[in-house]
Amino acid sequence: MMIIMNVNASPKEIKDVRSWIESNGLGTHLSDGAERTVIGIVGDIRPMHTEQVMHFPGVDRVVPISRPYKLSSREFHSADSKFSVRGLNFGGEEIHIFAGPCSVESREQIIEAAHEVRLAGAHALRGGAFKPRTSPYSFQGLGEEGLAYLAEAREATGLPIVTEVMSSDQVTLIAQYADILQIGARNMQNFMLLKKVGESGAPVLLKRGMGAKIDDLLMAAEYILAQGNQKVILCERGIRTFETQTRNTTDINAIPVLKSLTHLPVILDPSHSTGHWEYVAAISRAGIAAGADGLMIEVHPHPSQALSDGGQSLKPARFADLVRQVKAIATAVERPVAAQPELVHASS
Amino acid sequence: MMIIMNVNASPKEIKDVRSWIESNGLGTHLSDGAERTVIGIVGDIRPMHTEQVMHFPGVDRVVPISRPYKLSSREFHSADSKFSVRGLNFGGEEIHIFAGPCSVESREQIIEAAHEVRLAGAHALRGGAFKPRTSPYSFQGLGEEGLAYLAEAREATGLPIVTEVMSSDQVTLIAQYADILQIGARNMQNFMLLKKVGESGAPVLLKRGMGAKIDDLLMAAEYILAQGNQKVILCERGIRTFETQTRNTTDINAIPVLKSLTHLPVILDPSHSTGHWEYVAAISRAGIAAGADGLMIEVHPHPSQALSDGGQSLKPARFADLVRQVKAIATAVERPVAAQPELVHASS
Amino acid sequence: MMIIMNVNASPKEIKDVRSWIESNGLGTHLSDGAERTVIGIVGDIRPMHTEQVMHFPGVDRVVPISRPYKLSSREFHSADSKFSVRGLNFGGEEIHIFAGPCSVESREQIIEAAHEVRLAGAHALRGGAFKPRTSPYSFQGLGEEGLAYLAEAREATGLPIVTEVMSSDQVTLIAQYADILQIGARNMQNFMLLKKVGESGAPVLLKRGMGAKIDDLLMAAEYILAQGNQKVILCERGIRTFETQTRNTTDINAIPVLKSLTHLPVILDPSHSTGHWEYVAAISRAGIAAGADGLMIEVHPHPSQALSDGGQSLKPARFADLVRQVKAIATAVERPVAAQPELVHASS
Amino acid sequence: MMIIMNVNASPKEIKDVRSWIESNGLGTHLSDGAERTVIGIVGDIRPMHTEQVMHFPGVDRVVPISRPYKLSSREFHSADSKFSVRGLNFGGEEIHIFAGPCSVESREQIIEAAHEVRLAGAHALRGGAFKPRTSPYSFQGLGEEGLAYLAEAREATGLPIVTEVMSSDQVTLIAQYADILQIGARNMQNFMLLKKVGESGAPVLLKRGMGAKIDDLLMAAEYILAQGNQKVILCERGIRTFETQTRNTTDINAIPVLKSLTHLPVILDPSHSTGHWEYVAAISRAGIAAGADGLMIEVHPHPSQALSDGGQSLKPARFADLVRQVKAIATAVERPVAAQPELVHASS
Repeated sequence: MMIIMNVNASPKEIKDVRSWIESNGLGTHLSDGAERTVIGIVGDIRPMHTEQVMHFPGVDRVVPISRPYKLSSREFHSADSKFSVRGLNFGGEEIHIFAGPCSVESREQIIEAAHEVRLAGAHALRGGAFKPRTSPYSFQGLGEEGLAYLAEAREATGLPIVTEVMSSDQVTLIAQYADILQIGARNMQNFMLLKKVGESGAPVLLKRGMGAKIDDLLMAAEYILAQGNQKVILCERGIRTFETQTRNTTDINAIPVLKSLTHLPVILDPSHSTGHWEYVAAISRAGIAAGADGLMIEVHPHPSQALSDGGQSLKPARFADLVRQVKAIATAVERPVAAQPELVHASS
Repeated sequence: MMIIMNVNASPKEIKDVRSWIESNGLGTHLSDGAERTVIGIVGDIRPMHTEQVMHFPGVDRVVPISRPYKLSSREFHSADSKFSVRGLNFGGEEIHIFAGPCSVESREQIIEAAHEVRLAGAHALRGGAFKPRTSPYSFQGLGEEGLAYLAEAREATGLPIVTEVMSSDQVTLIAQYADILQIGARNMQNFMLLKKVGESGAPVLLKRGMGAKIDDLLMAAEYILAQGNQKVILCERGIRTFETQTRNTTDINAIPVLKSLTHLPVILDPSHSTGHWEYVAAISRAGIAAGADGLMIEVHPHPSQALSDGGQSLKPARFADLVRQVKAIATAVERPVAAQPELVHASS
Repeated sequence: MMIIMNVNASPKEIKDVRSWIESNGLGTHLSDGAERTVIGIVGDIRPMHTEQVMHFPGVDRVVPISRPYKLSSREFHSADSKFSVRGLNFGGEEIHIFAGPCSVESREQIIEAAHEVRLAGAHALRGGAFKPRTSPYSFQGLGEEGLAYLAEAREATGLPIVTEVMSSDQVTLIAQYADILQIGARNMQNFMLLKKVGESGAPVLLKRGMGAKIDDLLMAAEYILAQGNQKVILCERGIRTFETQTRNTTDINAIPVLKSLTHLPVILDPSHSTGHWEYVAAISRAGIAAGADGLMIEVHPHPSQALSDGGQSLKPARFADLVRQVKAIATAVERPVAAQPELVHASS
Repeated sequence: MMIIMNVNASPKEIKDVRSWIESNGLGTHLSDGAERTVIGIVGDIRPMHTEQVMHFPGVDRVVPISRPYKLSSREFHSADSKFSVRGLNFGGEEIHIFAGPCSVESREQIIEAAHEVRLAGAHALRGGAFKPRTSPYSFQGLGEEGLAYLAEAREATGLPIVTEVMSSDQVTLIAQYADILQIGARNMQNFMLLKKVGESGAPVLLKRGMGAKIDDLLMAAEYILAQGNQKVILCERGIRTFETQTRNTTDINAIPVLKSLTHLPVILDPSHSTGHWEYVAAISRAGIAAGADGLMIEVHPHPSQALSDGGQSLKPARFADLVRQVKAIATAVERPVAAQPELVHASS
């Protein structure tokens, strides 16, 4: 930590700050600039001190030097994290596409959707059984019934399933069905939930909050990693800005920034980051071109009957076309799109 | 809902949209402008349809006419909501000040803080026992031990206590100690938690998320009200913007906007909305001047020893001065600052 | 400037950075933390170097220590800037209210408006003769004819006039009529214009751009001050955020932040910062409560006939009520509202 | 325009709004919903009325139906605009890359840069002679001398030149040297300048302001087109958001949104939209993958000596590698990268 003093800070003010730091058992280091004095702290400073020192007279600003995340940082773990989920290998060169409807609406719908997205080239099936809806009057999901349908769809198609967990007391139940636990944007800083999915050891797909900085996302991942669970996939899904032509603003910069800062796999959800189906293919291509390790796409067999997010869902034929485009981009960036999981019949 | 068609939409495209709406049992209403056709929907449209119609050829945009919140809307309940908490009357002209440290750090600290803020003029004591911290390595709160200390501080000073609940499985426990359950900004859209505090019937202080629109805040309140719990206080605490001189940007406009849109009481938390103790008094005055019904202020007996948020906490003497300034502003807007709760000794 | 090296920066990488700095004639200063090395630069670094050093291997980040503005900084000029414009004294305790229509629409309209706002308590008359309109099809202002009407309105009421200058080649003309030259939000970084109004020596009202940080505003002021013109009033007028209930988000924090960072007077324009007339009084009160030195308010004798910005303009009676409320707030913060300028008849 | 009335609007309030509209010579059209009445306006409403009607009692909101831009809208001109600049054909399938240093610093530097970027594959040379710098103390450009060096660089390499014009009184001078006039982000709403470059008839590269919505950009283009100048290229260069890891946030969504809304060519400037050279290649690939018609890249022969924007400039070798990557992406989206202009010696 560096403490930047006011231009007019007195020698006594500088001395008082130093004394206080040293009384906390840390060393200090003075740098007299032409204009200001900067006090560096030597030793392991606890974050609280960053703030406390703002109360000393003569202090202008405090600049942190260390980054607050360690386990998720590439500086401390330079190699990409690698782990497998039902035959899908994350953390390597292969690109994965997660697809499916926003919500599980019925047994028929999710099984039809699973077959459609598998046919079109998806590697995993997404679908919400427990739905975080902005309105209490909107469809809230089928709950455990939906989980059972997802499991059936997995059996029918071989696709691993990704589904959202909204509360720490759901983790055990959902982990019995799901292959990957999704933490939604609105729960990115639900710390009780982060700890619980960390403890579960299950693979986690962690979506960035719409008001969260990249550093906040990495700190949220840190909560999971700190429980000993390394299987975390990060997902950019758009942030809130002043632009209103799209539901959110895709932070495409976040893709190369995250790939540089962390060893965790990073995917993009262009359905939420745009909010309009007609922009999803373009932003999918952009995501892979920017270096994303995968995509999560909303696909509904009949979007004009969808119970949620119909406006941003693709029809299966359009999704198949998107997969073809993404493969061309993957080739351009010299990465393979992963092979689809094998279809293992329950009877075999 | 109004469906705005493209300039070049064909008669068939217009007809198809109408047919689909009517097949859903709703009426339509055509408005041929000089440039575009607008299709109005007559009847109670479910929100999902808003999105589905985006898939019809020739549709340009969809404009919602109804607001999505009802119970929290002043249009449907024009009079201010009124309720009492340990002698404090919310929903009237009286202004309330909640104050106390960010976290309960020890029995001595919270009791000292309670005495200090009472002496300075506060109406309720705030303090976190369970803390949502950005970093897993930061102090996470004393848990139930902290709740017990808060209760002791209440007994010593007569001040009702406000403390945060972070997870639906904590609601029952915390409601045994707290007078008002706080939902933090990061949990504003933790819908499981919203439902649970709604069911509890306990008074709730609901903080706006840092990436949440005013409409999102009202929808979050709607979740609580939809459970039959009317005792909800809304709290503006700053939003994320590009400005970096302050931790957040106080959305002062939200005060009169919320007072116009909803019948619920609205308070301001200038400690979080600025992030710097030196701006807290100015923004407290601004909040009351803009029409806020109260304030929530971080006060620590010794900010330079605070285990969290020390940089934005006020010393008791500065807080006492702030209360004096706020009283002058309250007079200027012709509102009384509430009387402090009576001090009821357990022995009496 | 501080250069923060990567955790894994090699001694050679550190040495190379130091050598390059020293080859530029500057000293360096090494601070070895537990985790990272920080290189401080001793001497007057030119801003360009901040960026160039990012190309050296092993560099993580660069942190500026000095602030880029000097002449506008309170650190270098601690006392408030003071100057007078036709009997109005800026830079002291007195609060000023600028009011008038968005645009000068006719001789009758501006003279009626001037009388109305004077009667209600305004200190200066605002009105645009040259209008920066988002649409080329909107009313663009009366031009020099409008300036002449403004001058006539000044003669009739004694109110100094504030009007916008949109281009460097208009400065000479407009300075012949106006008492204060307004730089609009969209021209805040029109550096040619800033230099020209700086050279003119005329008092300047500089509005913050809707996408501008506080530091950008102070740098824009620096351009004017660097020409030897000290008569600059800063104006917060709202920034662009994701909130859509209001046209802009009033950055109320900017008021105490600016008062702390600069010695220049700071006013608030709640008409633009909210965009809705019904919120203007509340945000006016908030601005003065937060420490603003004045207000700029859109008032139109007949808002429902206004050729621009009718939705945010107040009727004269509402403005008179606003002035009464502002006076009460001024009393609460122990500041006087300035006396109105004397009415000097041309014939006397 | 649709006027949405309050839930509780009285018949008289509805009648008053209708009467006022009809007194302006326009028709109205009533739509009685279950909850609210909506009044549609038939005829060509002037934008001012949108705002005036907000003053009528009982009005909740006003929703515009028409888009404010016409000449730049694809709805009115569905085919892509096409025009040529020194052999480069804009508006077709071909992709163009503009490259060069932020500023012209010397004759040698710009000629070296021109040769380097041509060798690496650029189609046009960028470089500022007049520089809009945030600080008055930063290098402000070489002025006309810089223009002459640019012309010399064009002669040496055959590359058309793009350079910024900051003020309406510079247009004539700069148009004598430049092939494309650049309007910078800070001047996007300098309407006097927009009109002047419109009148000049010269090709214009219009950069989006950092606080500007997509609609604002299209309205700025409308100013140029309204003067009869159709040769406008739009450029996304990042917007201001709360994310601080990058200088701006690339609004990648804006690429497909603009391609859908307008017939004008759209390019991306990843140097400014990221602010860090290490992310420029990834975001360049993303831009072309998303459908951009070209790129504008800062390249400096010696970035660690650059007088401006060194941190985001690429070295020539890295730029050459970027061009290779962009060509692969162009192939993936089935578009050709344009052939480079022929090298025409002055003597021939």
